Amino acid sequence: MVAAMETLGNPSSVHAEGRAARAVIERARWQLAAATHSDPEEIVFTSGATEAAGMALAGRALDASGIEHPAVLAWTNESLRVDPRGIVEVEDPAHATLQAANGETGVIQNLPRGIAVTDATQAFGKIPFSFRELEPGCAIISAHKIGGPKGVGALLMGGKAPIAPLLKGGGQETGRRSGTENVVGIAGFGAAAEAAARDLNDGTWCIVRELRDFLEGILLESASGLVFFGNEANRLPNTSCFAAAGWKGESQVIRLDLDGFAISSGSACSSGKVGPNQVLISMGVDESKASSAIRISIGPATSREQVSQFALRWIKYYKRHCERGN
Amino acid sequence: MVAAMETLGNPSSVHAEGRAARAVIERARWQLAAATHSDPEEIVFTSGATEAAGMALAGRALDASGIEHPAVLAWTNESLRVDPRGIVEVEDPAHATLQAANGETGVIQNLPRGIAVTDATQAFGKIPFSFRELEPGCAIISAHKIGGPKGVGALLMGGKAPIAPLLKGGGQETGRRSGTENVVGIAGFGAAAEAAARDLNDGTWCIVRELRDFLEGILLESASGLVFFGNEANRLPNTSCFAAAGWKGESQVIRLDLDGFAISSGSACSSGKVGPNQVLISMGVDESKASSAIRISIGPATSREQVSQFALRWIKYYKRHCERGN
Repeated sequence: MVAAMETLGNPSSVHAEGRAARAVIERARWQLAAATHSDPEEIVFTSGATEAAGMALAGRALDASGIEHPAVLAWTNESLRVDPRGIVEVEDPAHATLQAANGETGVIQNLPRGIAVTDATQAFGKIPFSFRELEPGCAIISAHKIGGPKGVGALLMGGKAPIAPLLKGGGQETGRRSGTENVVGIAGFGAAAEAAARDLNDGTWCIVRELRDFLEGILLESASGLVFFGNEANRLPNTSCFAAAGWKGESQVIRLDLDGFAISSGSACSSGKVGPNQVLISMGVDESKASSAIRISIGPATSREQVSQFALRWIKYYKRHCERGN
Repeated sequence: MVAAMETLGNPSSVHAEGRAARAVIERARWQLAAATHSDPEEIVFTSGATEAAGMALAGRALDASGIEHPAVLAWTNESLRVDPRGIVEVEDPAHATLQAANGETGVIQNLPRGIAVTDATQAFGKIPFSFRELEPGCAIISAHKIGGPKGVGALLMGGKAPIAPLLKGGGQETGRRSGTENVVGIAGFGAAAEAAARDLNDGTWCIVRELRDFLEGILLESASGLVFFGNEANRLPNTSCFAAAGWKGESQVIRLDLDGFAISSGSACSSGKVGPNQVLISMGVDESKASSAIRISIGPATSREQVSQFALRWIKYYKRHCERGN
């Protein structure tokens, strides 16, 4: 990204400075194509998953379930059923959108081949994802979910996807997405995609999974009333979502933040808002339990020591909460 | 921007890491507000001017002239007249959009107060621009036109502008523009805006104007048939657009690029495309002359020596072109 800051040209300009900026983007496109098993020409860079979702979904009124991200739900019919494990039933894949994995619970869906649109934002990088094998009409991905910069994403588009441009003007991205490209961010996205593919291949996420299971084991031992959400389905290796009945999620977030632990009581974009976690409500969890849920995300940079420290603190505060009486 | 790369949190998260990212964005918002004479809450960060134009213009069918950028023309009625100087007549400002200055010719418009939308992308930073004084419904600006990163922009919105979100989802930017923010890019935009305001105040662009006039003087002396476009109106200090009849603009771009000069035969986003410059056509320039036009942009980092060198080369190639016969 720092190197890309030095390319001052506009990637649509034909002179040497423009071509240098173009080369940065096209290199990233190849890196992303390799990491997603897609063709470079199937990749349209966007300002993030939210824009990619708008491109893929606007005006199509596809079926979706209530566990989708708000950027998907904004454009869809919330008509698909979610079972208590967090698994969604899709009857008509050609007219439905289904996430590859959930950002709150980590629950991985069994994506039907040929689904119209899949939001692969949470899954991409953490579990194998092949655009070519799945053959969705479109797939939505985001750089900052794989360690890249915030504010960059992509829509992977098969040739037959009936997608009209959302941003119109100069005709960049072969007319599919106008606007001068975020060269620095796209460079970071490409590098992050390459690194993510390597990490996945190297078993990085197996170690993360072990840490996550280690954490859940300790917590369950000390707090027998804990409920883990989505753990009857396959889950992403990094995510743990659980509730201790009666102890508000927001209170836990604030308490643990004071100790230097960044946890969440909902998706980041809704975590400033009041109200129970809508993903859990859609899974049939009652409001009181959903309001007590927190989500822990572990990454490749998280150590066993950090996980232990977190667990010790959480248990201490949980016991204090119980002593005060629910 | 490099410092902002270290803020790993999501600006919508409530924990310390999230608040640190939020602080980066809000600092940039204040910097931009100061530079544009707007209130911080009037600023909505976008992925660039193209997205800001879509937000401001989609579904409104405002009147526009043919000299607007394609990102504006994509959403408007091309019904306003342009005179040969490049000046646009607006009868009903409340139902029209008008650029503050043109990117090809540099022509500065006399913006009527209360214009529904103004594209200030080219003007902002190079000439004084006050959102508060002009009172447009909305103003469109872009970071990379003031030395900031590509892929970041903003829509300045007065409270009464009837703007519906273009990107929907998590409700960022107080619901006006969803999507996790481009923290690194926004940090760069803020810094660039602060620097641009300082440069403008310090008279940087007066020096640029002198260089531009110096360039035009030399060229005109050696090539008496040259036509300068827009020079009967007020122009931005950095822009010179001219044609030597019969010598294709693209040929000049390619020839000068070989000597290390990055010039343009149209806007960057359309410069890969064939066909005469549409801004000039809208001003009533004939197709042959419009096809011979090139645009030179001079910046604060351009030296007098570089301008002289460019002029010498251009004159040399121009004479060679004349000798071969038109």
